[in-house]
Amino acid sequence: MMRGFPEAEFRARTRAAQARMAEEGLGALWLTTEVDVRYFTGFLTRFWESPSRPWHLIVPAEGKPIAVIPSIGAYLMGTTWVEDIRTWSAPNLADDGVSLLAETLTDVGGPVGVPSGYETHLRMPLADFERVKAMSGIKITDDAGIVADLRAIKSEAEIEKITHTCAIAGRAFARMGEIAGEGVALSQVFRDFQRLLLEEGADWVPYMSGGAEQDGYGDVISLAKDAPLEAGDVMMVDTGAIWDGYFNDYDRNFAITRASDAAKAAHARLIEATDAAFRIARPGARACDLWKAMADIVGGGEEAGRLGHALGMQLTEGLSLTPRDETVLRPGMVITLEPGTEVVPGKIMVHEENIVITEGAPRAISPFSGAELPVL
Amino acid sequence: MMRGFPEAEFRARTRAAQARMAEEGLGALWLTTEVDVRYFTGFLTRFWESPSRPWHLIVPAEGKPIAVIPSIGAYLMGTTWVEDIRTWSAPNLADDGVSLLAETLTDVGGPVGVPSGYETHLRMPLADFERVKAMSGIKITDDAGIVADLRAIKSEAEIEKITHTCAIAGRAFARMGEIAGEGVALSQVFRDFQRLLLEEGADWVPYMSGGAEQDGYGDVISLAKDAPLEAGDVMMVDTGAIWDGYFNDYDRNFAITRASDAAKAAHARLIEATDAAFRIARPGARACDLWKAMADIVGGGEEAGRLGHALGMQLTEGLSLTPRDETVLRPGMVITLEPGTEVVPGKIMVHEENIVITEGAPRAISPFSGAELPVL
Repeated sequence: MMRGFPEAEFRARTRAAQARMAEEGLGALWLTTEVDVRYFTGFLTRFWESPSRPWHLIVPAEGKPIAVIPSIGAYLMGTTWVEDIRTWSAPNLADDGVSLLAETLTDVGGPVGVPSGYETHLRMPLADFERVKAMSGIKITDDAGIVADLRAIKSEAEIEKITHTCAIAGRAFARMGEIAGEGVALSQVFRDFQRLLLEEGADWVPYMSGGAEQDGYGDVISLAKDAPLEAGDVMMVDTGAIWDGYFNDYDRNFAITRASDAAKAAHARLIEATDAAFRIARPGARACDLWKAMADIVGGGEEAGRLGHALGMQLTEGLSLTPRDETVLRPGMVITLEPGTEVVPGKIMVHEENIVITEGAPRAISPFSGAELPVL
Repeated sequence: MMRGFPEAEFRARTRAAQARMAEEGLGALWLTTEVDVRYFTGFLTRFWESPSRPWHLIVPAEGKPIAVIPSIGAYLMGTTWVEDIRTWSAPNLADDGVSLLAETLTDVGGPVGVPSGYETHLRMPLADFERVKAMSGIKITDDAGIVADLRAIKSEAEIEKITHTCAIAGRAFARMGEIAGEGVALSQVFRDFQRLLLEEGADWVPYMSGGAEQDGYGDVISLAKDAPLEAGDVMMVDTGAIWDGYFNDYDRNFAITRASDAAKAAHARLIEATDAAFRIARPGARACDLWKAMADIVGGGEEAGRLGHALGMQLTEGLSLTPRDETVLRPGMVITLEPGTEVVPGKIMVHEENIVITEGAPRAISPFSGAELPVL
């Protein structure tokens, strides 16, 4: 599968943003996060792991984006479709790109939209943000959700990449018997599962979580413990692995040595809920409709929480399958179905699959689990 | 090696912050990033990979920190020393923790310091930040660098963790011959090297970069290409792997099949520069002194850029070995020595080691390379 995107993809994304900017009366967008910068450029590097350097992309009302970045990134940005690359020697505590940014914003003209709503953050020091505002004199406002709206609908090329990384995780999950079983520490399973994901083709593994206790688990965000797995444990492993900058996000449950009737029934309930949401996941259905289809089966009512979300360049992004989210599904959305249910008091099980919304029936891109809880 | 820290460590960190807050006239600190929240609590999870939920920690003028977090994190936060855990059911687009935060800040009292300087960012939507400010009426200001200053000096327990993860990478680098050589794609080497790090005990691998071209490389932040390694290539692999929440950050260079005289000489120059900085890396020396010791050997003058930095909970943090950074070294700092040099026009080599500043001579915590460029 080919890495990257043709230039036409970035041009289309930029033009779509510019059309929305015109409607909203914005002269430019100012983007600072890895995903937002990459969305309009293809600039893909793990160097964002270092917080020492800010990176900026300005999307003007017309023409290509302008990069305002540390000089260490000039070579890589030069391999993208971006032509106007303005650099400074970072880090420079006296002026860490501030005057260069202020000049650029003044050149381009405002008002300037900065993503400020749900799931966004400003990846630069607040004090420097205030300095740029004061120095440029440009009006800074919200981006009116333009970037999030665009990113919510994936192109065919994006869907291919997500499908590819889902298949990688599917092959890794199929090998769980090689690494997990009674007596093995969950922490060792986590380490080995990341290895399997890499062996099956993942570029890297930004996310892993899960749990393992008798008849379910109490929590799904803790790191794995060093205690050995025991017969009767239900182990859940949840991954978000990257291929060419796109995530999968799904999990699998396994019983260790033996499964109780309660665990078997809970797993069957989760699969039934997933299928119920899958059947109605078509254009026009709302996020809350899918939530209700699952909540009616897994129980818990409003307390059931979020039972799925969109994904793509981020592990989680965009809509939430909650009772309050009325986002209408559209073709090109990629979402997770993630029901959770109580097995016995204080112990839960969570299941997750990934699907694409199309014009007609949805397409499963993770290899859907059957109702039977696998036993290792 | 034991995971986590005794409660006394978090109490000491909190009291040290509170002493500085009193000097600066701050009523509270408001922290939003993974590292800052973890520094005062021990709250360690990969769930931060999801941008869908903000997390907040308030450090009051006296007593333990207060967590204001999504309810999904209550269980894990409950295992830390934090007692006052205030939760909301996130995501809630109508009020995503805003009113709960405003109430908490009003309870605690201001002025409230938010990290706003070099290397910081606010991990929450800007619009919600403005709402909290308006709703609480509390004065929000900079944290006066308190958190960064505290984090710059590592405790013995922190140094042990960093030393442990450095040793893991050392064992993985020693096995490079198993995975790399003429005809193997660099992208495959990257994948396999992450596997080796996991096998040697890393919890996960947030950072990998490098390059491989004839007699050096043009860039150090690009992802690996699928083209096979060729005889005469100089391959550099740079890692930042995590153990119990702490990073290593160092690299190794290898010649593929054969090494040119220019590459051998460049490698020897890098080792000489590293040794020169190592010899003077004692309390009282400044970051810029170490920079000069290396720049005098590797050449490039001011253009040599940043030749090292501190590390710890982040891949890079704190001081920079640049001509302008006059930070004075103190015992407990953990830093990288990272000289780069031109091999032939347009091709560079970069070398990196990790050291601890002590009362006397520094301690190497990565297994220092010899002058000879290893050939695979």
